[in-house]
Amino acid sequence: MDSETIQVTTGGRPATVDITLEARSFVRGRGDGLLSIFVPHATAGVAIMETGAGSDRDLLAHLDTLFPRDDRWTHRHGSAGHGSDHVVPAFIAPSITVPVLGGELQLGTWQSIVLVDPNAGNSKRTVRFSFVG
Amino acid sequence: MDSETIQVTTGGRPATVDITLEARSFVRGRGDGLLSIFVPHATAGVAIMETGAGSDRDLLAHLDTLFPRDDRWTHRHGSAGHGSDHVVPAFIAPSITVPVLGGELQLGTWQSIVLVDPNAGNSKRTVRFSFVG
Amino acid sequence: MDSETIQVTTGGRPATVDITLEARSFVRGRGDGLLSIFVPHATAGVAIMETGAGSDRDLLAHLDTLFPRDDRWTHRHGSAGHGSDHVVPAFIAPSITVPVLGGELQLGTWQSIVLVDPNAGNSKRTVRFSFVG
Repeated sequence: MDSETIQVTTGGRPATVDITLEARSFVRGRGDGLLSIFVPHATAGVAIMETGAGSDRDLLAHLDTLFPRDDRWTHRHGSAGHGSDHVVPAFIAPSITVPVLGGELQLGTWQSIVLVDPNAGNSKRTVRFSFVG
Repeated sequence: MDSETIQVTTGGRPATVDITLEARSFVRGRGDGLLSIFVPHATAGVAIMETGAGSDRDLLAHLDTLFPRDDRWTHRHGSAGHGSDHVVPAFIAPSITVPVLGGELQLGTWQSIVLVDPNAGNSKRTVRFSFVG
Repeated sequence: MDSETIQVTTGGRPATVDITLEARSFVRGRGDGLLSIFVPHATAGVAIMETGAGSDRDLLAHLDTLFPRDDRWTHRHGSAGHGSDHVVPAFIAPSITVPVLGGELQLGTWQSIVLVDPNAGNSKRTVRFSFVG
């Protein structure tokens, strides 16, 4: 297995970051296998979804609806409502795999690989790519 | 890695389709490894859950509760509320893996592999099976 | 691929159980590859999240908010509201993978691997670990 990490700038606000190009670059020339995308953070996840037509903004807005930033959370570190950031990764997991054939991601036309980071407390994140042939 | 796609008919309405038999057929005789199930569509996902006792219908109904088909979504392509279809795959991901031993899926007794497609705008879908030994 | 199962005691109530130590023990000495964690049950899932600061309790409480234990579910087996237990795994999937380098899980500092079991009807659960090098 080959594995490496990249650094992603989220800017210190709730963010989605399209990392498809980085993933594509990582698998190029590797033949057939599975790409694992893993985020080693407790308040971020990885999604495969359409970007560029508003759905990434829709996702961030809907996270605030489904996981309200109020005082219901017993996790009290950080800013108010930060407890919700720690529950989101149970639903948008920090780990996903994508099949690769001939060094090409087998994504559909409208699919992108997206780092989902509701946590405004960090401006940089690490993403690990690993390839099993 | 071996990889192939199947076509699944959803009928052009929100649907869950049990694809366990197709997955079982794909892995038969392959020995030990991981089966990757991947849906190359931006408005569908894969779940592992019980079918045949109402939970698949419960899931579709509850998607409409958690992701209402109203005008909150900025993604405006397609029918009203279609923006919700694009957010669902962040939660029900289009990618999942199942361990295989001796060519047999290691599912529990009540688990099935299910294509989850809230999008009424498509009547046929593609599912990719890949096996890493 | 090497694969084995462990038994986890949940105590017959909605529970999260940190299984990171068991996963770490399983991969020790195995070199580089992917660890698959798979729960062969239709009413449980696996999450990667922080434990020990309240987020695991927050998750269980929030499951009751997002998937209310009322009479909306058509799945009528078991206790009232049990239908919700069958929908949760579509969102918190029973399968996740973690990259392993040099026999060490590549988890972040605050990440743990957690069995999430909202179902009070079982007191013991099985978890399968599989390693693909």
